[in-house]
Amino acid sequence: MDRLTVTEKIIAAKVSSGIKWSEVAAKVGLSKEWVTAACLGQMTLSEKQAGVLAEIFSLSEEEAKWLTVTPYKGSLPTAVPTDPLIYRFYELVNVYGSTFKALIHEEFGDGIMSAIDFKMDLQRENDPNGDRVRILMSGKFLPYKQY
Amino acid sequence: MDRLTVTEKIIAAKVSSGIKWSEVAAKVGLSKEWVTAACLGQMTLSEKQAGVLAEIFSLSEEEAKWLTVTPYKGSLPTAVPTDPLIYRFYELVNVYGSTFKALIHEEFGDGIMSAIDFKMDLQRENDPNGDRVRILMSGKFLPYKQY
Amino acid sequence: MDRLTVTEKIIAAKVSSGIKWSEVAAKVGLSKEWVTAACLGQMTLSEKQAGVLAEIFSLSEEEAKWLTVTPYKGSLPTAVPTDPLIYRFYELVNVYGSTFKALIHEEFGDGIMSAIDFKMDLQRENDPNGDRVRILMSGKFLPYKQY
Amino acid sequence: MDRLTVTEKIIAAKVSSGIKWSEVAAKVGLSKEWVTAACLGQMTLSEKQAGVLAEIFSLSEEEAKWLTVTPYKGSLPTAVPTDPLIYRFYELVNVYGSTFKALIHEEFGDGIMSAIDFKMDLQRENDPNGDRVRILMSGKFLPYKQY
Amino acid sequence: MDRLTVTEKIIAAKVSSGIKWSEVAAKVGLSKEWVTAACLGQMTLSEKQAGVLAEIFSLSEEEAKWLTVTPYKGSLPTAVPTDPLIYRFYELVNVYGSTFKALIHEEFGDGIMSAIDFKMDLQRENDPNGDRVRILMSGKFLPYKQY
Amino acid sequence: MDRLTVTEKIIAAKVSSGIKWSEVAAKVGLSKEWVTAACLGQMTLSEKQAGVLAEIFSLSEEEAKWLTVTPYKGSLPTAVPTDPLIYRFYELVNVYGSTFKALIHEEFGDGIMSAIDFKMDLQRENDPNGDRVRILMSGKFLPYKQY
Amino acid sequence: MDRLTVTEKIIAAKVSSGIKWSEVAAKVGLSKEWVTAACLGQMTLSEKQAGVLAEIFSLSEEEAKWLTVTPYKGSLPTAVPTDPLIYRFYELVNVYGSTFKALIHEEFGDGIMSAIDFKMDLQRENDPNGDRVRILMSGKFLPYKQY
Amino acid sequence: MDRLTVTEKIIAAKVSSGIKWSEVAAKVGLSKEWVTAACLGQMTLSEKQAGVLAEIFSLSEEEAKWLTVTPYKGSLPTAVPTDPLIYRFYELVNVYGSTFKALIHEEFGDGIMSAIDFKMDLQRENDPNGDRVRILMSGKFLPYKQY
Amino acid sequence: MDRLTVTEKIIAAKVSSGIKWSEVAAKVGLSKEWVTAACLGQMTLSEKQAGVLAEIFSLSEEEAKWLTVTPYKGSLPTAVPTDPLIYRFYELVNVYGSTFKALIHEEFGDGIMSAIDFKMDLQRENDPNGDRVRILMSGKFLPYKQY
Amino acid sequence: MDRLTVTEKIIAAKVSSGIKWSEVAAKVGLSKEWVTAACLGQMTLSEKQAGVLAEIFSLSEEEAKWLTVTPYKGSLPTAVPTDPLIYRFYELVNVYGSTFKALIHEEFGDGIMSAIDFKMDLQRENDPNGDRVRILMSGKFLPYKQY
Repeated sequence: MDRLTVTEKIIAAKVSSGIKWSEVAAKVGLSKEWVTAACLGQMTLSEKQAGVLAEIFSLSEEEAKWLTVTPYKGSLPTAVPTDPLIYRFYELVNVYGSTFKALIHEEFGDGIMSAIDFKMDLQRENDPNGDRVRILMSGKFLPYKQY
Repeated sequence: MDRLTVTEKIIAAKVSSGIKWSEVAAKVGLSKEWVTAACLGQMTLSEKQAGVLAEIFSLSEEEAKWLTVTPYKGSLPTAVPTDPLIYRFYELVNVYGSTFKALIHEEFGDGIMSAIDFKMDLQRENDPNGDRVRILMSGKFLPYKQY
Repeated sequence: MDRLTVTEKIIAAKVSSGIKWSEVAAKVGLSKEWVTAACLGQMTLSEKQAGVLAEIFSLSEEEAKWLTVTPYKGSLPTAVPTDPLIYRFYELVNVYGSTFKALIHEEFGDGIMSAIDFKMDLQRENDPNGDRVRILMSGKFLPYKQY
Repeated sequence: MDRLTVTEKIIAAKVSSGIKWSEVAAKVGLSKEWVTAACLGQMTLSEKQAGVLAEIFSLSEEEAKWLTVTPYKGSLPTAVPTDPLIYRFYELVNVYGSTFKALIHEEFGDGIMSAIDFKMDLQRENDPNGDRVRILMSGKFLPYKQY
Repeated sequence: MDRLTVTEKIIAAKVSSGIKWSEVAAKVGLSKEWVTAACLGQMTLSEKQAGVLAEIFSLSEEEAKWLTVTPYKGSLPTAVPTDPLIYRFYELVNVYGSTFKALIHEEFGDGIMSAIDFKMDLQRENDPNGDRVRILMSGKFLPYKQY
Repeated sequence: MDRLTVTEKIIAAKVSSGIKWSEVAAKVGLSKEWVTAACLGQMTLSEKQAGVLAEIFSLSEEEAKWLTVTPYKGSLPTAVPTDPLIYRFYELVNVYGSTFKALIHEEFGDGIMSAIDFKMDLQRENDPNGDRVRILMSGKFLPYKQY
Repeated sequence: MDRLTVTEKIIAAKVSSGIKWSEVAAKVGLSKEWVTAACLGQMTLSEKQAGVLAEIFSLSEEEAKWLTVTPYKGSLPTAVPTDPLIYRFYELVNVYGSTFKALIHEEFGDGIMSAIDFKMDLQRENDPNGDRVRILMSGKFLPYKQY
Repeated sequence: MDRLTVTEKIIAAKVSSGIKWSEVAAKVGLSKEWVTAACLGQMTLSEKQAGVLAEIFSLSEEEAKWLTVTPYKGSLPTAVPTDPLIYRFYELVNVYGSTFKALIHEEFGDGIMSAIDFKMDLQRENDPNGDRVRILMSGKFLPYKQY
Repeated sequence: MDRLTVTEKIIAAKVSSGIKWSEVAAKVGLSKEWVTAACLGQMTLSEKQAGVLAEIFSLSEEEAKWLTVTPYKGSLPTAVPTDPLIYRFYELVNVYGSTFKALIHEEFGDGIMSAIDFKMDLQRENDPNGDRVRILMSGKFLPYKQY
Repeated sequence: MDRLTVTEKIIAAKVSSGIKWSEVAAKVGLSKEWVTAACLGQMTLSEKQAGVLAEIFSLSEEEAKWLTVTPYKGSLPTAVPTDPLIYRFYELVNVYGSTFKALIHEEFGDGIMSAIDFKMDLQRENDPNGDRVRILMSGKFLPYKQY
């Protein structure tokens, strides 16, 4: 048994039960973004949080324990994703990558936006021309240190 | 001559003159995000917009004309970017890719967030624990059509 | 169990029963192009449509439920396909890629042909010099937005 | 000098002169699809056709001669294209690849749609919900021969 | 069950029984080249031909049916083959690729040698300096069509 | 200066002069297959043969000398060739690779067909259904040695 | 002109003058590790620091200005480095990668060692069995945040 | 059974029992860095050391024997690691690779830092601005030999 | 069952029994280099040799038969090996590749050192500064033939 | 100017002058293997040795200085070499890689054959069945250290 097995079991249990990710998140008491990532094998849960998931998805004690072990992260089967929804995000990095870099350096100097001290919020944005996906990302700026 | 030559000339002229991307954007009259992407060879400008850039960066008439031709897009030299700032965005796609997919499908059904009918806004977020990079993305949801 | 398992079961059941994709499509009440893609794990079905497939291919209730979950799309085992029939389409993209780009931009300006708001129709074209495959593709043009 | 040099000269001359691909095609007397592909370095021209292009784009005699030499084909800088417009076609191959294969084999048996004995026509399709790109492809079916 | 399973069963049965590919071909009534490719999962058999193989290799009715389904072709586990015998053919394409291209275009004009309307014959060539492998390939020339 | 420079000069000179590869071969006194490969930078010429080419293509003494130096072989810009004519040969290796292996081992035992002690002959094969490309390859069989 | 040009000029000037990296660092007033990385195009210098380098390596004013622009980072020509010295570091990541991960998570929980808020010190370690390279790395631990 | 199976069993047993790598190391009597690498399938143990692990992780005699066989080393599933913690080390090689090379050659001449005659020590470094990961590496310098 | 299964069984049996490769070779009556390669799935054995291995490793009759079938060769899981011992050989090819080429062509003219008509001998070389691995390779030179 | 420029100049000068690598080595006073590798940009020369090469190949003082700078090693343009002579060595690593590993570990325990403390000797081996290339490699065995 490993984390992947538990992830697959969670996904299958979710399909069977029909519960929504936002409902799972509400039970865990955290955002739907973080909880979904955790359920999909990318984040580490506390014992208590793992216990909540164990109840929702009928996990065994050993399976719940795996949720508290830090996983090997990375959720894509190939370096360039083939799924159209995920590819659009890759395309944004490709088309806007140098723009992100130029604007962040202009505002903050040399450094990066942390992908660790990071949070995001994904919402529906009502629009008469067709609703939109609205994603708010916030990552701490980390400057390169001279030494 | 091709678009890449013009992009390199713009970058070099910007280094020489010390003008900021946000100042360039103000002169063009559009957001700093779109204008920077255009200057970096990813977007197509109108003749009038190209004229503004020509003045700022001392471009010849022929160089300005290249700005009005749709470029071959993609701003990264490798499929997996090596630059740490840009890599963090790639990492977000890798770690959160399946989460984006799960949450957007849960809210909207099968489809994608458009990377074409898309806009974004990048700001400094003041924070006592260290300022943060705040990026607001908004892309139209496009549903798969049955036929 | 996951979507792939269901796809493989559908393919095996189709081989056993000898039913044609066009017959499956007629029962679902949609085009053979969309229905085949759905059966091959690329599209999301409604519960009712999944029920029709379940009957045709003797799927269990859980298997049918998987058909209503949006799949991770991408039907090829390698980035450059080895199968000669599929490779010819890849070759068209390779040889005619810059032509598609040049002509669409000339007619519509900067933007793309949507692969989401898209439909296609594949027919036999009788020809005394040997019958031909005739594919009609139609995708909405999506212009890049300035902002 | 090689074909690539001539292609780049043609593209630059087109940007300078502002002539359209469809106008070039009309002067050559063939479809805009074939002529554009030829100008972009993918097809071989007759001496007479090369002469027409030489006049339009002010090519030297030697440059015109290169147009009559069969080029090394392939118009993309990477195996998976980064340009969003061209990527959408790659995505169609990825998502619909197995569907193309299933439907063509169902109709014709084992074999391929030729990418050589092939023609296509690209048009604007007026649509109240937004105009569409309409591409009609026609390729001879070539059956595998038993021997 | 899929075609690969049947291919592996055929290979294992051949090892057990010790029958030769040429003997299999004689029973099928076609060349050893085509029949071997078919047994190795690259060609599509008629029901009757599949019946002959089923008898030779003790295949079930369902396994035989899979032989009549067009397979996803491509017999190599990597893009550049590691097996020395197969690599030598890849090397010929690498070293002589531009020569094939130059000579075929010189003789026939722009087009290709079909790999579909294709046959080949592989024989031992007796030679006092060491016997040789003699391969005769014949593929229809397909010219690019102007349109 | 290096061999590649000389190869490019030969190709350009051939386009200018319009001489055929078969005529070049006749002057060198060897097959068109070997001579074309040599002109395209894949084989090593004797001083005398280099002299013949120097005369045909107006090469300088230093350029001719490079023809007598063994080149770094490999004529393709990518591991999987994009040019349709050359790709068809790669496809043959992919589709028929395991067949080559099976039949050669069946006839000769473990070993390879040499790509060094190798010759080939490419001819037009007249055919009422369309002329064909006929390639006869002959390579020495080299058995693995036990030791 | 771009940063790469300046980097190459610095390297060539260093070869000519014979100055040592540690001497350069002393003049800049920072560690030899940071200053060498900056000279090799990986770090951003202040105007004053750039001025010191300009004097040492006889850079023009424009060249010095490029040193103050944040570069596109990444100093290796291939994803897996071929140079033996650098490869040994890649090998350490490969062999010890899962060990780094296990031990840091055991001590700190889920998170990473920052490669931005990072410093290192490289020294000769005298040893009777052969001197050793001693590298001390120190990177801030950044915990994943729940939200 | 192979080494990988034993590694997976050890990892699963560690999750179940909750023992720490440092405690395992203490029982083996070596550093936590070497012992963790050994448990994760990268190092070879003596029979006695394997016996200690067998007791801790309830391994069978055959499983313990596998620990004494030198494994095929390499702990990462892809050439460029996707896990953020491990990627940061890859990034250090990428950003600082040329710096390592420059400084080691400056101090020692041509040669490498051995990754075999190598040891490392990983510790928490208390810091009021946030604790740090401190890694001390020591590898023998191996000079290239002239001959 | 296939050759890989037999290889894995041999490796596992060797671990269990503790027999050495040199002892296996002595029983087969050939060099340890060839016999080890054969046991590891790279060479083809005669029925008699397979019988000897069957006895040593307790193989079934069918397993022994697989040893007499020519395997798909190639013993590495990735194109660039990750295991440090094997990588060093890859590094030699990388660093000394052009040297091998230069010296063999200087001595023999254009051609290759055969990897088929090849043998090698690996020995311990006692040395007061640390014992050395001594490998003697001998491969027939095969000249390119003009034709 | 960089080392590559000097390497290319040396190769061109060698073609012009016709001097042999073994003659160059004799003048330097070291083996032909090491000296050739050095001339081809893989090794570092002393000032005196560089002076000898400068005289042979008419290098400038600055060019000679580059020979004393440790180069970025790696002599192949692709990870898998296309040149047949060099590929055969890659093939040996591929086919015999696991054999090298098995036999060296059996004789020496866990560790590697050094590619740094390494020397080799390449000779013609006269043989009535065709002369052979004989390569004697000797690399120090480096054991993994427990700590």
